[in-house]
Amino acid sequence: MDDDRYRRGWEKLEEIDGEAGERVIASLKDIAPDLARYIIEFPFGDIYCRPGLDLKSREIATVAALTAMGNAAPQLQVHIHAALNVGVTRGEIVEVILQMAVYAGFPAALNGMFAAREVFQARDDKGQS
Amino acid sequence: MDDDRYRRGWEKLEEIDGEAGERVIASLKDIAPDLARYIIEFPFGDIYCRPGLDLKSREIATVAALTAMGNAAPQLQVHIHAALNVGVTRGEIVEVILQMAVYAGFPAALNGMFAAREVFQARDDKGQS
Amino acid sequence: MDDDRYRRGWEKLEEIDGEAGERVIASLKDIAPDLARYIIEFPFGDIYCRPGLDLKSREIATVAALTAMGNAAPQLQVHIHAALNVGVTRGEIVEVILQMAVYAGFPAALNGMFAAREVFQARDDKGQS
Amino acid sequence: MDDDRYRRGWEKLEEIDGEAGERVIASLKDIAPDLARYIIEFPFGDIYCRPGLDLKSREIATVAALTAMGNAAPQLQVHIHAALNVGVTRGEIVEVILQMAVYAGFPAALNGMFAAREVFQARDDKGQS
Amino acid sequence: MDDDRYRRGWEKLEEIDGEAGERVIASLKDIAPDLARYIIEFPFGDIYCRPGLDLKSREIATVAALTAMGNAAPQLQVHIHAALNVGVTRGEIVEVILQMAVYAGFPAALNGMFAAREVFQARDDKGQS
Amino acid sequence: MDDDRYRRGWEKLEEIDGEAGERVIASLKDIAPDLARYIIEFPFGDIYCRPGLDLKSREIATVAALTAMGNAAPQLQVHIHAALNVGVTRGEIVEVILQMAVYAGFPAALNGMFAAREVFQARDDKGQS
Repeated sequence: MDDDRYRRGWEKLEEIDGEAGERVIASLKDIAPDLARYIIEFPFGDIYCRPGLDLKSREIATVAALTAMGNAAPQLQVHIHAALNVGVTRGEIVEVILQMAVYAGFPAALNGMFAAREVFQARDDKGQS
Repeated sequence: MDDDRYRRGWEKLEEIDGEAGERVIASLKDIAPDLARYIIEFPFGDIYCRPGLDLKSREIATVAALTAMGNAAPQLQVHIHAALNVGVTRGEIVEVILQMAVYAGFPAALNGMFAAREVFQARDDKGQS
Repeated sequence: MDDDRYRRGWEKLEEIDGEAGERVIASLKDIAPDLARYIIEFPFGDIYCRPGLDLKSREIATVAALTAMGNAAPQLQVHIHAALNVGVTRGEIVEVILQMAVYAGFPAALNGMFAAREVFQARDDKGQS
Repeated sequence: MDDDRYRRGWEKLEEIDGEAGERVIASLKDIAPDLARYIIEFPFGDIYCRPGLDLKSREIATVAALTAMGNAAPQLQVHIHAALNVGVTRGEIVEVILQMAVYAGFPAALNGMFAAREVFQARDDKGQS
Repeated sequence: MDDDRYRRGWEKLEEIDGEAGERVIASLKDIAPDLARYIIEFPFGDIYCRPGLDLKSREIATVAALTAMGNAAPQLQVHIHAALNVGVTRGEIVEVILQMAVYAGFPAALNGMFAAREVFQARDDKGQS
Repeated sequence: MDDDRYRRGWEKLEEIDGEAGERVIASLKDIAPDLARYIIEFPFGDIYCRPGLDLKSREIATVAALTAMGNAAPQLQVHIHAALNVGVTRGEIVEVILQMAVYAGFPAALNGMFAAREVFQARDDKGQS
C-alpha cells in the first residue's frame, strides 16, 4: 500500500514548499482530504522525487508554466517560494518570468512579476533570502 | 539604431534554434517580414542574450511553458530541438514534460511527450544527439 | 418574436441559478442590458431547456468546464450553487472538481475546491443543503 | 417565434462568411443541426446585426481574439476570410495578428500569421482580394 | 507498494477506454514508460475508481472539460469513446458539447462536435453503438 | 542604440495609456526595470507606432483579446482606458466585449463587462469621457 509514497511525498513537500505547502494541505482537511493526500503522493511522492532532473530545474519549469498559464495566482506564489527554497535566486526567478513575455505575452509576465514582488516582500519581512 | 540587436539576435537564434529557427524566419519573408525581425530582435537579441540565467534553464522554462499552454505545437517542437542544442539531455526534457501533468493535466503532458518523440526521431534520423 | 424564449429562459434561470443568477442579471442593467437578455435567452431559454440531457448532468458538465478553464471564478461559484439547486450533492461536486486535476492540473482542482468551500459555507450560513 | 432571427442571421452569415460559413453550417447537418441553427441565430442574427459597431471593427476583434486564444485554427481561417469580405485589408489583418505577440506571445502570433498566409493563398488562387 | 493501484487502474482503463486507452499506453513505451504507469495509477487507479460519482457522470465531466479547453483534441476523442463505452448516449454527448458554446464559445463547441463526428463514424464502421 | 525606440515608445505609451500606463511602469522599478523598458520599447516603440492600422482598431483588438483570454484582468482595465483615450466610445467597447461571448463564452464576456463598468465609473468620478 501507499504509506511509502505518502511519507516520501510529505518529506519532499516540506523540503520544497515548507510552510506554504503545509498550509495548502491543511486548508483541504475539511472539504477534500483526498485531494490533499493525492497532492502529497503524486506531485511530491512520485514526480518531485524522480532522479532525472534537479529540483532547481523543476521549480524553474513550474514557475515558467504557472506564469504562462496565468490562471493560478496562489499556486504561482507557492512555487516562487519553493524555487527560492531549493536554491533558485531571486534574479533567476525574475529572468524566468520576464522570458514568459515572449511565449505568453506581456500581461502574463507582468502578473507573474507582481506575484514575485509579493513573495520577495513577504520573505524580506521574515528575513528570508 | 537596431543593427546591434538584430545581429546579436541572429547569432543567438542560430546558436539556440539552428536550422529550425532559420526556417521559421524564412517562412515569414513573404507575409510578415517585420514579425521575423521582431523575433530576432526581442526574444533573441534582448531576452536570450541576458546574463542572469543560463541557456539550459531558459530552454527548460520554455519547454515547460509551451507544454503547459498546449496550443503551440510547432513552437514546442522547435524548442525541444533548442533545448537539446544547448545541452539539455533527452532525459531531462522527458522529465520537464512529465512534470507538466501536475500543473496542466495529463493531456498536456501526453501531447508534449508525443512532440518530444517526433523531435527525438528526427534527430536520430540525422545522427544528432 | 422572442417573448417566449425570454420568459422560458427567465423561469429556467430562476429554477437553476436562483438568487445568484438574478443578481448577475441585475448587475448588467446599467452597462449592458442586452447581455443580460442574451444570457436569459440563449443559455437558459435555448440550451438548459433542451430535453436531451438532465439538469444534473448539465451542471456537472458546467462545473467541470469552469474548473478546468480556471479563469472564471465568479461563474464557477454561481454554478456550484446551481448544481446543488438541481440535486447534485456536495460529495459529487467535490468528485467532479477533484477529477479535473487529471485533465487541467492540480492548481485548477485546488482553486475549484476553494470555490466549492466558499459556496458550501455560504449555504451552511443560510441553512441550505 | 424565431423565423426573423434565423433569416436575418442567415443573410448576415452569407454577407460576412460567404461560402466558408455555409460549409460550416452544412457540415453540422448530420450531427448537430441545432448547433448550426444557434450559430445562425445568436452570433449572426443577434450579435453581428447590432448597430453599435461596424463590421470591420467586429472582424478585427474576432481575428484578434481567435489569434490570442490559439486553440481554434479552423475558425480563425474562416474569420480572416470574413474580415477580408467586409473590407479589412490584408495589411490590417497582418497588423492585428502581429500585435497579438504582445498580449498572447510570439507563438500565437506566428500561428495566426501562418493561418493568414493560407487564407491569402487560397484567395489568390481564386483571384479574390 | 503500488501493485494494487496499477492492477486496479489497468482494469479500470480497459473498462473505460478500451482499445483506445491501451494504444495510448503502448505509444508511451519507448519514450516515457513512467508517464504510462502514472496514467494507469493516478487517473484510473485512484480517481476513476472512487465511489462518489458514477462513471457516466465522470465521462460527461471529462468531455465537457476537454471540449472547453480546446487544446487536447486526441484526448477528447478518447474520452468520447470512453463516454460511449460506459453508457452515455450519442445524443447526450452532443448535448454536452453543444452546451460548451455557452461557457467556452462557439469555436470550442464546433471543434468538439467535429471530434464527436469522427468518433461516431469510426464506431459506425465497426458496428459499435 | 535604442534611445529612439525608448523615447518614441514612452511618448506613445503616454498618448495611449496615460496615467495608468505610467503607474504600471513605475510599479516595475524596484523588481524588474528591464521589463518596464521592454514594454516601452517593444509594444509601444515598435508595435503601436506602426502605420498600418489606426490606434482605435489596435485598441479594439487588444480589448477583444484580453477579454477572450480572461486571465489578465488588470491589463484589460488599462486597455479599456486606453481604448477610450484614443477615441473608441463606451458603446463600442461594450459591443466588443459582448461579442466575445460568441468566441470565448459568456463568463469571459461577463467578466469583461464588469471590468468595463469599473473603468467607466472611475472615469465618471474624474469627469472623463
